[in-house]
Amino acid sequence: MTLILALDFGGTKHTAGVWRAGSTGWQARARQPAPRPPQASSDWDAMLALARQALAGAVPNVIGVSFGGPVDDRAGVVRLSHHVPGWENFPLRDRLQAEFGVPVAVDNDANAGALGEWAWGVGRGAQSLLYVTVSTGVGGGWVLNGQVWRGHNRMAGEFGHMTLDPDGPLCLCGKRGCIERLAAGPYLAEDARAQLAPGDPLYPQRETLTARDLALAAARGHPLARALLERAGTAIGVGLGNTANLVNPEMCVLGGGLTHAGEVFWQAVHRAARVTALPEVSVTVLPAQLGDDAPLWGAVTLAQAAMG
Amino acid sequence: MTLILALDFGGTKHTAGVWRAGSTGWQARARQPAPRPPQASSDWDAMLALARQALAGAVPNVIGVSFGGPVDDRAGVVRLSHHVPGWENFPLRDRLQAEFGVPVAVDNDANAGALGEWAWGVGRGAQSLLYVTVSTGVGGGWVLNGQVWRGHNRMAGEFGHMTLDPDGPLCLCGKRGCIERLAAGPYLAEDARAQLAPGDPLYPQRETLTARDLALAAARGHPLARALLERAGTAIGVGLGNTANLVNPEMCVLGGGLTHAGEVFWQAVHRAARVTALPEVSVTVLPAQLGDDAPLWGAVTLAQAAMG
Repeated sequence: MTLILALDFGGTKHTAGVWRAGSTGWQARARQPAPRPPQASSDWDAMLALARQALAGAVPNVIGVSFGGPVDDRAGVVRLSHHVPGWENFPLRDRLQAEFGVPVAVDNDANAGALGEWAWGVGRGAQSLLYVTVSTGVGGGWVLNGQVWRGHNRMAGEFGHMTLDPDGPLCLCGKRGCIERLAAGPYLAEDARAQLAPGDPLYPQRETLTARDLALAAARGHPLARALLERAGTAIGVGLGNTANLVNPEMCVLGGGLTHAGEVFWQAVHRAARVTALPEVSVTVLPAQLGDDAPLWGAVTLAQAAMG
Repeated sequence: MTLILALDFGGTKHTAGVWRAGSTGWQARARQPAPRPPQASSDWDAMLALARQALAGAVPNVIGVSFGGPVDDRAGVVRLSHHVPGWENFPLRDRLQAEFGVPVAVDNDANAGALGEWAWGVGRGAQSLLYVTVSTGVGGGWVLNGQVWRGHNRMAGEFGHMTLDPDGPLCLCGKRGCIERLAAGPYLAEDARAQLAPGDPLYPQRETLTARDLALAAARGHPLARALLERAGTAIGVGLGNTANLVNPEMCVLGGGLTHAGEVFWQAVHRAARVTALPEVSVTVLPAQLGDDAPLWGAVTLAQAAMG
């Protein structure tokens, strides 16, 4: 009976799962926060420990890996990490192969998430979907005709850097008005911070403000918090409507922290998506079903494909 | 030897081509302006006459059709025509089958154009391409993995209705700041007309002004004409850059009248596309090679596929 080891190197936490072919749940799963200070070698050591803990002495037949950053999926090499030093050119596949002596498949977390939701989540049976995750950044991955669509430079799915407003605020990527700049959590917090006035109920916590705080404040009717979440939802919605017109996928699956921000965000998403898509173009936007586990389930599917 | 009849119902002209399997050029081709006043039955009669003229007594083995408007490619039925009354629900495939007694494949001109450039034009050998035509409207078609990508509602490729500027001018589709509104020929002429002042060299011809006039004026340095063509090129370029980030095709092929508008247009396209695409994402924008014949060549490829 095939035993699959699935690994998810995330920005804030690492997870190892062990899955036995044919079952619907994990045989074992181990998760822990990413080590501090951030360092590739610490991540690597921590993940190996998690894997051995989840395997509990068993030997996997194949390994699938989701990595939270750009990877060369063909070579199984990390290209770079935006947040953690030392990952550049790390030969993840070969190192794991050397460690466990079995085939290894590696992809980034957006593609793995798309694959996970398609094979195990809300996208089961869909012929095509775009998976978008809205959290510290805005990433995306495609499944078209039942396969990850990677594109010519293996860069497809950069939904977050669609330019929506050429005169909008400056994004870290150097462009203005990217979806990510208008919708990602840290930017929302930054923009709130810049606009909060003394006397505002959020003013005392402005230095440590997060998107989660904004979501809670929006639910209580805080005008600025509502406006920022509406801006975020509208940006995501316009982007999904544009995507619907351009590629016309069967569904768009939305995951990541901000999708728990509540009704203000979701209503803006749905409204903007419907207004932006042409009348003849359906635009079905569904919340991700697997939550944080989507990339880990995608890693299982990557591993299955690697076995042939 | 297989003989293919290819038909192209265009907005302003109709073309019939006869192609013998294995050859590199047309055995015969007949073209004429669309009949006035516009009427589906006149189009149909004119096309039948063109087909018989091109066939010169020969009998085709299969027929491929490009139609300049929304069609249901599976049923071979025209959905509607924006410009010509009487086409709604016209069973193009069945009528041609009844007329010639052979298999018929039908698609819209954007998909046929994409297929034509991919199989016979500048896109030969590409694994994926987006074909965009910029003329009286802005349309697009996809070839992914060597096949037309049609999307869930068979509506993929609506590049022209990507929203670029939510505060921009109103498009006929009801939205603001669509690429089509910023780049299609008639809109450029309309916007020029609204801004031309008495004394301007273009003022006397303002009532009959076309995008071609603007292109000629831009080449002579006319500031407003240059600004409008730059706006059009920038809109197309930002759209292609967004598309590169989102889908990352191997190339984008640009056809249609406005691609003959000259350097001001093309420089704006290339500049905006490069600025909008992320550094790691290639954005190769090439002029269409087959010009007006792209959909007709695409009809040949549609016919080949229909034969199996």
